[in-house]
Amino acid sequence: MSSITLSPRIRTSPFYEAAVAAGLSDVTVYNKMILPTSFGDLKAEYDRLLGRVAIWDVGAERQVEIVGPDAAACAQYLTARDLSKMKEGQGKYVAMCDHDGRILNDPVLMKLSGNRYWFSLADHDMLLWCKAVAAEKGFDVVVHEPDVSPLGVQGPLAEDLIADLFGDHIRELKYFWFLETSLDGIPLVLCRSGWSKQGGFELFLQDGSFGTELWNKVVAAGEKYGIGPGAPNHVERVESGLLSWGGDNTPDSNPFEVGMGRYTDVDIDADFIGKAALQTVVAEGIGRLFVGLIVDTDAADDWPLPERTLVMLDGNQVGTLGAIVYSHRMQKTIGLAQIKREVVEAGSLVEVTGPNGASSAEIVTLPFL
Amino acid sequence: MSSITLSPRIRTSPFYEAAVAAGLSDVTVYNKMILPTSFGDLKAEYDRLLGRVAIWDVGAERQVEIVGPDAAACAQYLTARDLSKMKEGQGKYVAMCDHDGRILNDPVLMKLSGNRYWFSLADHDMLLWCKAVAAEKGFDVVVHEPDVSPLGVQGPLAEDLIADLFGDHIRELKYFWFLETSLDGIPLVLCRSGWSKQGGFELFLQDGSFGTELWNKVVAAGEKYGIGPGAPNHVERVESGLLSWGGDNTPDSNPFEVGMGRYTDVDIDADFIGKAALQTVVAEGIGRLFVGLIVDTDAADDWPLPERTLVMLDGNQVGTLGAIVYSHRMQKTIGLAQIKREVVEAGSLVEVTGPNGASSAEIVTLPFL
Repeated sequence: MSSITLSPRIRTSPFYEAAVAAGLSDVTVYNKMILPTSFGDLKAEYDRLLGRVAIWDVGAERQVEIVGPDAAACAQYLTARDLSKMKEGQGKYVAMCDHDGRILNDPVLMKLSGNRYWFSLADHDMLLWCKAVAAEKGFDVVVHEPDVSPLGVQGPLAEDLIADLFGDHIRELKYFWFLETSLDGIPLVLCRSGWSKQGGFELFLQDGSFGTELWNKVVAAGEKYGIGPGAPNHVERVESGLLSWGGDNTPDSNPFEVGMGRYTDVDIDADFIGKAALQTVVAEGIGRLFVGLIVDTDAADDWPLPERTLVMLDGNQVGTLGAIVYSHRMQKTIGLAQIKREVVEAGSLVEVTGPNGASSAEIVTLPFL
Repeated sequence: MSSITLSPRIRTSPFYEAAVAAGLSDVTVYNKMILPTSFGDLKAEYDRLLGRVAIWDVGAERQVEIVGPDAAACAQYLTARDLSKMKEGQGKYVAMCDHDGRILNDPVLMKLSGNRYWFSLADHDMLLWCKAVAAEKGFDVVVHEPDVSPLGVQGPLAEDLIADLFGDHIRELKYFWFLETSLDGIPLVLCRSGWSKQGGFELFLQDGSFGTELWNKVVAAGEKYGIGPGAPNHVERVESGLLSWGGDNTPDSNPFEVGMGRYTDVDIDADFIGKAALQTVVAEGIGRLFVGLIVDTDAADDWPLPERTLVMLDGNQVGTLGAIVYSHRMQKTIGLAQIKREVVEAGSLVEVTGPNGASSAEIVTLPFL
């Protein structure tokens, strides 16, 4: 395993110093920032996420803010989902597509007000996309990256911890809804969200100078719940069927091919980028489906594959495998794949190649758990 | 130093396996790909680059191809430099700016034909920018990332090596000019370019399946010249004053503030993105200059700073320091900085903070060597 070279070209988040102090051992780069991947014991981090509560530096989940008189129209034009009924304080999981209907990102879109939105992003410089579209299309908006960095608090005890810090009213917050609030004067947006299915919140810190202070306050309040450091957990997210955009999918995928069909509204009145192309996809049929695999092997570890591998049937490629792990809860080896629709519908057994060679695999619907 | 976690979200180049076999030890992520930074001995890599010839996996230097009837107009619209006299087979170092005149990238633009151009990129997802602009502006072009990955051959003996492989006619190739050619059937574009000032070429491999084969052929031909593996060398590039876009500069910089004034043509007839804003910059005066610093300390190492630090004068911030290294050739500690124009013009001594504390620094013009 190679060492990462730090440089000013790759930013660290406001929580990075605290993460290093907590024993950060492994990282990736996400939105040109350091994103922790482990603190040295992936299984302990998994157990903490499943059983207690974990604190995650997910500051690399950057926001693109669209602000101005045309913000609502611009946000809709950038999004392949109906936003007409969206309320202030609400977030929605959305697909952003290019003009050919290929998905560019799967952010949570947050409506702060009628003229202010955040796209809370997966790994792609969407600031460039949004700025170019807004300027060339002539929307009266400012598009920029605000000083906003999410801190994840995830796990079954996260709600108790957050209620201790912010009050019991946060227990009423619905999934992807948020509040603008503060903690001892530290400005933040508190959202019920996070890249796990274990429950939890993200604290969108609105002033990076408070990063270590916010981390320490959460850790202090979390001690009685057994809090510890962690990071988006590869095994848990595969079990939960959470998409890693850009990793699980090939670059030419449309939203229907990454499991986002139910969030994709091709028949709304409003225009959005990729609408015509996606209407054609619906009319002609979706090429591939995003599915789970139960793989007939014991051999898989807790780390991601270094690259996508092929899914084969009778010697022909029928898809791509984006992830394969050993599920601690299912006690089975499982994977995430994009596979041709006709193969999925036929229920065929396929063949995949993991870290330890080729194995037969059964196709199942997501999520696993 | 943390380990990098590989995953399908971060691609490896066609030369990655060969680089690993050659002893790759340290990496960064560049354009969402692994980019080697060292093979374990930075000083030996520096000496090889200065004295002999080095092979570099710079496949992360991605191309955006603009192809179609409007390619020339689209390339010009995306570029803050006069392209009207550009010839087929020629490359130019250009700034790409946003609508406010802020530089988004400093690629080499290569004209393959009248309707086909490559932007050979620094670290930013410019494919998104170019696709959005082309689609919303209505240019009749296709914008995509081709299967093209540069392999660097850098150093004073690079020309002899490349002449052995391709023939003596390549000695006539001017800087940034290129040829479409092949090596034993491996299709590539051979360009006199590379991110050092030691001379050399980049072999733009046009079929990734030949990565290891091309690497091995270059190494075999280079043995008599003492070739060895390397990577863009931080000390050499600082000595040479080569910009690391996104690292040396703050995100709000215009091309004049990163030393690209002589490549920026604000008075051409053609329209380009940021033209009006850059005309205003010229009329009102440039805010900061990209300069060298000779720093009064012995303490600096061969690795980049983890983040930009401040340049101070009389207790006030007057700029940012992007790099500080010990120059083996100058036997001095040197740095790269963006500093307020009036401070540069006054010739003031400034204060910078490197890995070993604060030091006084003299401002000098670039390059150092």
